This record gives sequence, C-alpha cells and structure tokens, in this order.
Amino acid sequence: MSVDDALEQRLLYGLDRLLKALELESLGDDHFGVVAEPGRFNRMFGGQMLAQALVAAAATVDGKAPQSLHAYFVAGGEPGQPVKMTVDRVRDGRSMSTRRTTIAQGDRTLLSAISSFHANPEGPEVDGWPAPDVPGPDELPALQDWVVDPRDRFWVDHPPPLDIRMGESLSFLGEPSKEATRSHWMRLPRAVGDDPLLHAALLTYASDYFLMDAVFRAHPQRAGPHSLSGTSLDHAIWFHRPVRFDQWHLHTQDLVAISGHRGLARGAVHDAGGHLVATVMQEVLARPAKERAG
Amino acid sequence: MSVDDALEQRLLYGLDRLLKALELESLGDDHFGVVAEPGRFNRMFGGQMLAQALVAAAATVDGKAPQSLHAYFVAGGEPGQPVKMTVDRVRDGRSMSTRRTTIAQGDRTLLSAISSFHANPEGPEVDGWPAPDVPGPDELPALQDWVVDPRDRFWVDHPPPLDIRMGESLSFLGEPSKEATRSHWMRLPRAVGDDPLLHAALLTYASDYFLMDAVFRAHPQRAGPHSLSGTSLDHAIWFHRPVRFDQWHLHTQDLVAISGHRGLARGAVHDAGGHLVATVMQEVLARPAKERAG
Repeated sequence: MSVDDALEQRLLYGLDRLLKALELESLGDDHFGVVAEPGRFNRMFGGQMLAQALVAAAATVDGKAPQSLHAYFVAGGEPGQPVKMTVDRVRDGRSMSTRRTTIAQGDRTLLSAISSFHANPEGPEVDGWPAPDVPGPDELPALQDWVVDPRDRFWVDHPPPLDIRMGESLSFLGEPSKEATRSHWMRLPRAVGDDPLLHAALLTYASDYFLMDAVFRAHPQRAGPHSLSGTSLDHAIWFHRPVRFDQWHLHTQDLVAISGHRGLARGAVHDAGGHLVATVMQEVLARPAKERAG
Repeated sequence: MSVDDALEQRLLYGLDRLLKALELESLGDDHFGVVAEPGRFNRMFGGQMLAQALVAAAATVDGKAPQSLHAYFVAGGEPGQPVKMTVDRVRDGRSMSTRRTTIAQGDRTLLSAISSFHANPEGPEVDGWPAPDVPGPDELPALQDWVVDPRDRFWVDHPPPLDIRMGESLSFLGEPSKEATRSHWMRLPRAVGDDPLLHAALLTYASDYFLMDAVFRAHPQRAGPHSLSGTSLDHAIWFHRPVRFDQWHLHTQDLVAISGHRGLARGAVHDAGGHLVATVMQEVLARPAKERAG
C-alpha cells in the first residue's frame, strides 16, 4: 500500500517544519535559540523537545555519537514560539561526554534532560530483545487508515511527519487487540542526507509516539476510545547503533507496569533487518478522561 | 539456609556505614554534605551515589514519594571522603516535583541526576513483567557461598550490606548458567524503621548490583571469570509501589543489547508476593579485561 498524495504532501510539509525546529541559533556560552514547531498539537510535542535537547547537547560535543538521553517533561510549551536551550558541559572524557540540557520559554522550564555521547568502536553485537514477527510495512495500512471517528481527524489533517504503517488500531482510535505487545513501522517521508546526529534526533522525536498507548491498552479503567487521558512524564532512549531513519524501522511497545495514576512502557526500535537500534522507556500519567476534567 | 554469624556481623556493620553515608548535613541553599562509605570498593560504589542523590533531592520536596531517578556516573569518587550535593528545584507542581542533583568531590563532578516525586493515589495495579518462577530465598545459598576463587574473597570480607541469595553463580564468580535471565533474592540484614524514603533509597542502592552481570553473561568475548571488565555508565529506576526492603525482594536481570563497548541491561524488582516494585535500566561499558589494561 502507499500513502495517498494529499497525505504525503502533509507529511513532507510537517517534516520541513520539524527540521526547521531543529535548526539552532547559537546565543553564546552554550545557550541556543530555536523556534518550536507550529501548532500540530495544542502544546509543544514532547518528542520535539527531546530531539531539540539532543541536538543542542551535541552542538557542544566534538564528533562523538549520541549514546543515550534521559529527560523529564516539566511543563507544556507554546507551539510556534521561541525556545531557549541551555547546555552544561558536565564532563568531556576521551571517548565519552556528558551533558545537561534545559529547555525553557521565558522563565518557564519545559524540559530537564541529561545525555551522553560516546565514540563507540565496532564490536560484538547481541540483541537481547528480538523483533516480533509481523507483516512488512508494504502489507499494512497507514496510521491514517485507522481513523474512523471525526474526533481523530487530527491524525489525518496534522499527521506526525512520518510514514507510519500498522496492522491494528491504536487504543484511542478504536478497539485495540488483546495482544500485550503492539508494533508499528515508521520512517521519514523523504531522505534527509547523511548526518547521523539528525537521524538520531528524528528517531528520538518519533520514539515519543504511542508508548502511552501501551499503557492505555492495558489499563483496567479503559472503557473505549477517548476514555483515558494521558501525559508523558519522562523519556529515556539508548542508541545501540547508528540509525538511517529514511529506512523502515519497527517500533514495538509493551507495558511494564501500571500503578495508581502512573504507567511505564517500554519501546524497542528494530531496523528492517531485525537489529535493535534503540531502546526506549517512558512513564506516563494515565487517568480516566472524566477525572482529568474534574 | 541462614547466613553465618561472622558474615551477618559484616552485613550489619556495612549497613550501619551505609546509613551513615545517607545522613545529610544541610549546607544551606539546597547544598548538602555527606561522607561517603569507607572503602569497600577502591572507589565509591555507584549505588551509594544514586541513593545519596535520591535522599538529597527528597530533602527539598515536601511529602511526595519517589517516582523515578535517572543518572549518569560521571567519574569515580574517593571512599570515606566528604561529598557535596547540589539540588536544583526544577519545578514544584501540585502532585509532582522535579529535581536535578549533582554530586561532587571538590570541583570534580561524580554524578549528574534528575529525579521526580509524586503523590500517587491508590489505583489500578497491572504488572506487565511478571516475576519468574524461582525457588524461595530460604532454599538458596548466599552470594558468599558461590565464592571459590581467592580473587573473589572481597565479596565475603567486604560484602554488600544485603542478605543476598541466589540459585546460580554470577558470571564473574564462575560459570554462569545459559539462561538469558538471572535472579537473586535480596533484603536488608535488619529492620531500619518505617521511613518510605529510606527504604526506596536502600533499594536504589541495591539495584546497582549485578546488572552488569547480565551483560557479562551474554558477552561473546567472555572467556571465563574475570575475563571482562565493566563500568556502569548510567542508571534509571522507576518506583511502582512503596517498598519494604527489610522484606525479601527478587531482582531479575536480563540483557537488552550489546553493541561495541556498551551493553544495556534491564532489572525488575518484585516483592515476595510477585508484585513489581521497581524497574531498573543500566548501560555499562564492557570490555575484555586485557583491553582495559592496554
């Protein structure tokens, strides 16, 4: 199957805007300015801030590749508005560099992150978490094909800037399967050159999609689409290998635990050859939608 | 089986020293001083710094329970020496507080951490990662019973301040099993009162043991005990429930991925009733011991 032309135009437009939101202006002393993506969401998408934090930290590191990033989402940001990032150079070792990054709008902290960069030599490769056996992307419908409820038109009109294919519905789009684990294929809608940092940053952006759904899917209080509301609390990503995100990757999510208002999900990103490229963990706040309104 | 009297005395002595290393002196303006555990290792144990970072952050938070902590091990510290901790109050919300914590000796940063605290209401409980089916702690030998090589006497003479039982050897003590997953039981060697923060901090300390072994066990270049050397790089822990660490807990580790010099391991801590109490992720630097010397 192929993504229709109108959707493809929206994906390409979205990617252009995202790439713009990753173009840092240096403000001196490891401060950087950037303008957030315009409003696809009613607040800045968390994945955007993760990607920005990674790019800003990397701008202070010479040559080492992204190793991992840990972050808390502290407050919601205004889309389309300027953002300021501050990087602390915690340590520069021979093969490894550690950074702290804060993202703020005005005096309001939006994200607090720590990250590490490493010149990792080639060496043994062992995957402890194998890729699930699922149909290939060309055999599966696009995310947008799963949208049936008018409330979900958002995903068609302002889609994530990614070509996404999936074999079953997300829980907020309809009735999810009973499988504990769910996967979707994803890739950039066009080539973006060869900069490994940019590929890692765009994968980081994409890794923030649908982890919450692993919590929704398993939630005992789920009563159908839109019955739960969620907020991402933190995010951690480990890069096991360089990524070429203009190629297909399979993102598999499962639930670790739900307790009270919190749920922890795990994501595994494999390339089309079945190699584990990145591991993701995210905790979310998940509550019945009515409680949120109350 | 029971731990012998001489060992028990060493465990109790070690716990006293650890508790001492968690007694903060306030230096004003969210700075705290503490004296590191004396030298059980030739440098400060990472788990000690994680526990200290959690306790220092919590000292600036009113009443909310620990939710999670993410940290990078930046440099090795001197055992038995003073340590200074600096906490930044990133945000205080109604139900959630975010903190950054730095641990340093002099002008040398040892640990960079971010953490969150949350007043989590009672609610649904779902465990996505069930406890493995293993024999109970009373049927298993102590960690120390697995020590056969004189090079490993360290674990008998200066043991972790924990009662640890395991059904198979750690890879650095001998030939590990071929199972991908390995578990050990652990608990404090005596009661320490009812402070939930202290229990969480001591579990955090304990969670830094043997994750590295999940990487060693699966490492293609492993050639027997002491053939690999390792260094912990980061650590993340999510607390799903309050913990009573004077009771038995099962810590299960498995490998996520090895790539080049890095390996990522996952830990799951269940209580004796099989409930998931905490989830842990740790990346380590793992290399043939000869390479390290070179």
